[in-house]
Amino acid sequence: MPKIVDHEERRREIANVALDLIANAGTSAVTFRGVAEASGWSAGVIGHYFKNRHDLLFAALTRAAELSGEHQRSIANTFEGRQALEWILEEELPVDNRRLALARIFVFYYAEAGTDPAVRQEIDKYLRRWRRQTEIAVKQAQALGDLDPTLSPATVAADLVAYADGLSIQALFNDDLMSRIRKSSPIREWVDLLRPQSNSR
Amino acid sequence: MPKIVDHEERRREIANVALDLIANAGTSAVTFRGVAEASGWSAGVIGHYFKNRHDLLFAALTRAAELSGEHQRSIANTFEGRQALEWILEEELPVDNRRLALARIFVFYYAEAGTDPAVRQEIDKYLRRWRRQTEIAVKQAQALGDLDPTLSPATVAADLVAYADGLSIQALFNDDLMSRIRKSSPIREWVDLLRPQSNSR
Repeated sequence: MPKIVDHEERRREIANVALDLIANAGTSAVTFRGVAEASGWSAGVIGHYFKNRHDLLFAALTRAAELSGEHQRSIANTFEGRQALEWILEEELPVDNRRLALARIFVFYYAEAGTDPAVRQEIDKYLRRWRRQTEIAVKQAQALGDLDPTLSPATVAADLVAYADGLSIQALFNDDLMSRIRKSSPIREWVDLLRPQSNSR
Repeated sequence: MPKIVDHEERRREIANVALDLIANAGTSAVTFRGVAEASGWSAGVIGHYFKNRHDLLFAALTRAAELSGEHQRSIANTFEGRQALEWILEEELPVDNRRLALARIFVFYYAEAGTDPAVRQEIDKYLRRWRRQTEIAVKQAQALGDLDPTLSPATVAADLVAYADGLSIQALFNDDLMSRIRKSSPIREWVDLLRPQSNSR
């Protein structure tokens, strides 16, 4: 190892390797040995940065949430209104390898959130941020005349996030749904239903 | 133990006790000792019916899926169209203790479905049945003029089930969402959006 190593940066790199493994083979592929083989670092180096397998998986969760936050912000800075809204929601669908890892790691931890307060807090933070970004986009879309202005932005945001999350999770167990969300965007059809009354379907 | 015991019936009774424990304290409360204390049977008797804790939890999953199927069928036999549709979807929301146990056990196993083929099969069966019941109700509601007849019943059913599942899972981590789904039904508002165009919002 070089003498000067950015500890946080190295942890982040290892977490990225863990996310790649999750995308390709699921959470069970994340072991010290598996990450060592995939990254070229030794299991000893990985053990220097992570206490145990749980610590490594939790770093992958935190990294996945961080990546998703970065993508959401970049969408919000590039697009506006309805387009931003759809992209922010689609950001969490497992339509490519990056987002498949995200969906898998979150489902893995959803189950643990019931018993582990640190996990629950991380999941809650992630969902709150996703809802908040969605709500901002809903308000913009309403101001632009793309969405019914009488709808409550907070309620619509919570509902759309629940819908996208449900799609994302169920696609992991159902090949038909997975191929459907990869072919077209069910999100856009639902957002269509929220257009202003005057030009409704 | 009495000499003549209906093995399946006893397993079912023990699985019911496990589901009660899950509703009250989460999946971590399901241990041989915990079930023994809650049921009055000894841990030895429970060990006679289940190999280990995993076997017991899997029985709770199977039982939850069975109960939810029974409720869905009974709704379909009692109500029709839009009312049946809404009730079938709300059947899976954690709005009371019975349904809270259901939501918790399914989230617990969603995480395992990635690595355990038996779990994946059970989850897939459960979701398929839920979609099928929903699709039947959508078709009825369309025939009765309560839902837009141009919508694809299979697609709408898959989307509504994903939405209800997302709400159900996220409510486990978010108290605001939990109190919202217990106060009113977000499902009904979404189904409203699917009414025929002529009398749309």
